[in-house]
Amino acid sequence: MVLMRRELGDVLRERRLAQGLSLRGLSALAAVSPGYLSEIERGTKEASSELLASVCGALDVPLSEVLASLSERVAVMESLTAPVVLPVSGMPRVSASAA
Amino acid sequence: MVLMRRELGDVLRERRLAQGLSLRGLSALAAVSPGYLSEIERGTKEASSELLASVCGALDVPLSEVLASLSERVAVMESLTAPVVLPVSGMPRVSASAA
Repeated sequence: MVLMRRELGDVLRERRLAQGLSLRGLSALAAVSPGYLSEIERGTKEASSELLASVCGALDVPLSEVLASLSERVAVMESLTAPVVLPVSGMPRVSASAA
Repeated sequence: MVLMRRELGDVLRERRLAQGLSLRGLSALAAVSPGYLSEIERGTKEASSELLASVCGALDVPLSEVLASLSERVAVMESLTAPVVLPVSGMPRVSASAA
């Protein structure tokens, strides 16, 4: 099962690092605690909509852009975790014979 | 401020109605309480990643697709709530004169 919070955490961390910001730096800009932000980035806590808006504002990136990145990332994870269909019906029958 | 949970609620409700499902019908399929699902759809409660995965599974729609719809919807809301820039610097000066 692909969980949104894990992928969202990765997307947010990538955006932060791309801007050369430390966790403490971003948490100060977004006015959220570094501990909370760290849990969001590690995907261990759900981000509230207010926190997400605040972090997007601090990173100066539209929420829609973060969600588009998230959608792409989740699509990759879905393709990796999709069940593999084996060609069972087309498999040749094996018949055992003593002859 | 565009809040994700409000837009997500609208996206999920639209998907449910497109499949002709009632709130109770979907809540039974997704194994979540109708009250919780109703709050999610109205945007008054944050959806956990597990709930979202469960609802997507019940609707037979990939999470990535729901997130893509959400991104598009949020982009529209962002354009509607963006501040209007007035052409202050190019405005002709008005000078008052008694002549």
